[in-house]
Amino acid sequence: MAELFDSVDAAQKMSTPQAERDANVKNALDKIKHKFIVMSGKGGVGKTTTAVNLSIALSNLGFKVGIMDVDLHGPDVPRMLGLKGLLDLNVKKKLRPMDYSPNLSAVSIESLTSDKDNAIIWRGPIKYSAIQQFIADVEWGDLDFLVIDCPPGTGDEPLTIAQTISDAKAIIVTTPQEVSLADVRKSISFCKTVEMEIFGIIENMSGLSCPHCGEAIELFGAGGGEHTANTLGLNFLGRIPIDPKLVKCGDDGISYQTQHGDSPVSLAFVDIAKRMSTIV
Amino acid sequence: MAELFDSVDAAQKMSTPQAERDANVKNALDKIKHKFIVMSGKGGVGKTTTAVNLSIALSNLGFKVGIMDVDLHGPDVPRMLGLKGLLDLNVKKKLRPMDYSPNLSAVSIESLTSDKDNAIIWRGPIKYSAIQQFIADVEWGDLDFLVIDCPPGTGDEPLTIAQTISDAKAIIVTTPQEVSLADVRKSISFCKTVEMEIFGIIENMSGLSCPHCGEAIELFGAGGGEHTANTLGLNFLGRIPIDPKLVKCGDDGISYQTQHGDSPVSLAFVDIAKRMSTIV
Repeated sequence: MAELFDSVDAAQKMSTPQAERDANVKNALDKIKHKFIVMSGKGGVGKTTTAVNLSIALSNLGFKVGIMDVDLHGPDVPRMLGLKGLLDLNVKKKLRPMDYSPNLSAVSIESLTSDKDNAIIWRGPIKYSAIQQFIADVEWGDLDFLVIDCPPGTGDEPLTIAQTISDAKAIIVTTPQEVSLADVRKSISFCKTVEMEIFGIIENMSGLSCPHCGEAIELFGAGGGEHTANTLGLNFLGRIPIDPKLVKCGDDGISYQTQHGDSPVSLAFVDIAKRMSTIV
Repeated sequence: MAELFDSVDAAQKMSTPQAERDANVKNALDKIKHKFIVMSGKGGVGKTTTAVNLSIALSNLGFKVGIMDVDLHGPDVPRMLGLKGLLDLNVKKKLRPMDYSPNLSAVSIESLTSDKDNAIIWRGPIKYSAIQQFIADVEWGDLDFLVIDCPPGTGDEPLTIAQTISDAKAIIVTTPQEVSLADVRKSISFCKTVEMEIFGIIENMSGLSCPHCGEAIELFGAGGGEHTANTLGLNFLGRIPIDPKLVKCGDDGISYQTQHGDSPVSLAFVDIAKRMSTIV
């Protein structure tokens, strides 16, 4: 199993005693004004796409933004941002986040793994430690926003964030179909239990129009996320329509917002980013 | 946090000492001819839909089938099968799986939880124990097939299955786009590391035709799963096209194959089920 552990070795390089790490976590978080965790009950609802595009929209508004990818088993942030290579250490042996632009930097386990096809086969306790190191042992610097991309569900990763970043606010992404909404209610239950503030709900993949004939196609339906938000008294942050070009840009690591700035999808992300920035 | 633990209480009801459980696990597995674990690198690729529909197809072929839902944070199997209510205990205090049909029964954490909107906030070690109990403390009886629906990724749940069911074969579900294929390569790496046989790869959401004009819509692309399988020398089990009716049936807990038995999607599932049954 040796081939799996190059990423563990990378994590070890930045390991420090727990007491020192706790202090480092606090120091790092004190320099970050706002922390948002992007969650979903179900996978494949476009959580990473949402986290990446909100981060780009916030950085385009002039804010300093960091994106932290804690989806350890499926870390897609670097690919979507077109970031290649491995993270460097600075003179203090802290990891330097990768720069996407002067205003946006990113950290992901993917950027600590030399063979991208290797699986991260970690049980919960190692994940806890790794995520704490993503905060404590990274040179995030002064940020307006830290956007955290979490794996789906209510397991070790979101629990670690909730316990480590007490002022993190949750953005819950869902698609409109009932199977997804059932799981989103579990995410809401999670936030209430760990006393994490829910900033609001985003409905992604909301409606699809045929690019050929323009007719509406009922793929996942539309409106279910808004209905759930209203029923539960939560903020509804907006609908993001399905756009096949968004999938393509994510695959290719190209910024959709740069390529398609006037599209309904881009406008929806900018609108939500502005709502996030009003609490600054 | 008391409201979370009704499901833990339910799990406790069936708890037994570890040595006895190990023996019970072995006894239960000895009665099951073939075990398949349905995995995916990424969430939302239709893994549960695939597990459920392969189980139905196998049961329609006359085999005795059990489906075990180990997606503890997003257990969607009961909803997709239209199974409501809670699991019962038999006279030996073993859990009785829920019957979908005379040939198909199911066990899920969802059927042990009275409030379906509550999140299961469990760290890894409790998951390990729960999954072992899903095998040891359930009256599965004699089965031709056990189909295991796993959460996405390479974390505690698939690792527990790999360690507990040494002869389980993996079916890896992917969608055609590159972000999904990148994660599928991690699933393959996982299987190789834990020495789990890969039965093959299924490409889901492969191609979409507009139901109005019939034109092809490039949503997630098509062919990427087959290409990955061929490149890595793995069996390619087939493509499942996108059909909005499949989403609707899953939401409503209605058997798609009963309603749309002659559709390309149903035929694809039956074809794969036949391939699974050829190893009997």
